[in-house]
Amino acid sequence: MDNKEISQAVIARLPRYFRYLGELRDEGIERISSQELSDIMKVTASQIRQDFNNFGGFGQQGYGYKVEYLYEEIGKILGLDKLHHLIIVGAGNLGQALANYMNFERRGFLFKGMFDSNPALYGKKIRDMQVRPMEEMEAFVRENEIDIAVLTIPKAGAVSVAEKLVQNGIRGIWNFAHVDLNVPPGIQVENVHLSDSLMKLTYNINRFEQET
Amino acid sequence: MDNKEISQAVIARLPRYFRYLGELRDEGIERISSQELSDIMKVTASQIRQDFNNFGGFGQQGYGYKVEYLYEEIGKILGLDKLHHLIIVGAGNLGQALANYMNFERRGFLFKGMFDSNPALYGKKIRDMQVRPMEEMEAFVRENEIDIAVLTIPKAGAVSVAEKLVQNGIRGIWNFAHVDLNVPPGIQVENVHLSDSLMKLTYNINRFEQET
Repeated sequence: MDNKEISQAVIARLPRYFRYLGELRDEGIERISSQELSDIMKVTASQIRQDFNNFGGFGQQGYGYKVEYLYEEIGKILGLDKLHHLIIVGAGNLGQALANYMNFERRGFLFKGMFDSNPALYGKKIRDMQVRPMEEMEAFVRENEIDIAVLTIPKAGAVSVAEKLVQNGIRGIWNFAHVDLNVPPGIQVENVHLSDSLMKLTYNINRFEQET
Repeated sequence: MDNKEISQAVIARLPRYFRYLGELRDEGIERISSQELSDIMKVTASQIRQDFNNFGGFGQQGYGYKVEYLYEEIGKILGLDKLHHLIIVGAGNLGQALANYMNFERRGFLFKGMFDSNPALYGKKIRDMQVRPMEEMEAFVRENEIDIAVLTIPKAGAVSVAEKLVQNGIRGIWNFAHVDLNVPPGIQVENVHLSDSLMKLTYNINRFEQET
């Protein structure tokens, strides 16, 4: 399987396929045609076939796709068949919310630690995990083979914390800090810039009002 | 100014321009060339000029752009010169984090109320805002001319809550529920599917490892 040229647009759609297929599976549905999947997901059947062809196709045309098989294959492509060791850096409201909100373990994300620079939070338990001082982060990342860090600290500290994470072997940063990080090639960053997303919403609201 | 054909890709980049220009302004920088902006933002100068040309260009080539002017114009395009009345539906960890995390008021978002269906949360104060019972949401939206709802409830209830919001005059939904909402034309939805974003990260991590 050669995925090298798969665009980020296709990749961005994979989790959505995975989500819908998981729901179909939970409903006990065994097979689905690209047309049925198209109706549920509001994308064209041809888009679905094109997307899946990037990964060898998965299906028997005419018979439709096997839901369970497709779900598992897409999960593997997304790397969800592997275990990931994850820490959260920043134990404020957002960090705590993510620790509690995400059903990490179900998808192979092992929540290993939580760090903050605010002494008032040291030792506080969040989902049975004690908040540790930021000074311990670097050794912890090395010693526990942490591969993913969730960054939920203010932007002022984010760049230097990201550098420390990279120096100690992190492979991916899920970045909620309101700043773009510069990392070396091979280190993956996925940004969740919440204010950017809210501004996109207001743009579309105001645009629509001016048009009508 | 005719923005009708501006693609969502351009729109998705506007908040990022706005963010960088705000930082330049805060640093006291008055003028910037597209090349300098290009260096800071790691996009090509030609991309910047193309993006800005969608809105009439903003600048004098050669002299560069006036930072303050550009910042304000992009803010207007994003609808940030208007006041928006916002509620948060779902007062769990994520809803509380968003209430505390976002500096809503600075951008014209007036945080007007917070709702939950869990009686244990009724009356709880989050950022000086009492959590109200979900039953009060519909009347509240009408009476307070709420235009934006932040949806941070589990996916099971999200679709029906979104319908109620739409029936009572909401214009935009910032959707954190892990489900795609079907809304009538003219109602804007901006999704923040956190698990999808985390899966994109693991895809890129695993992809990189297979290639190297």
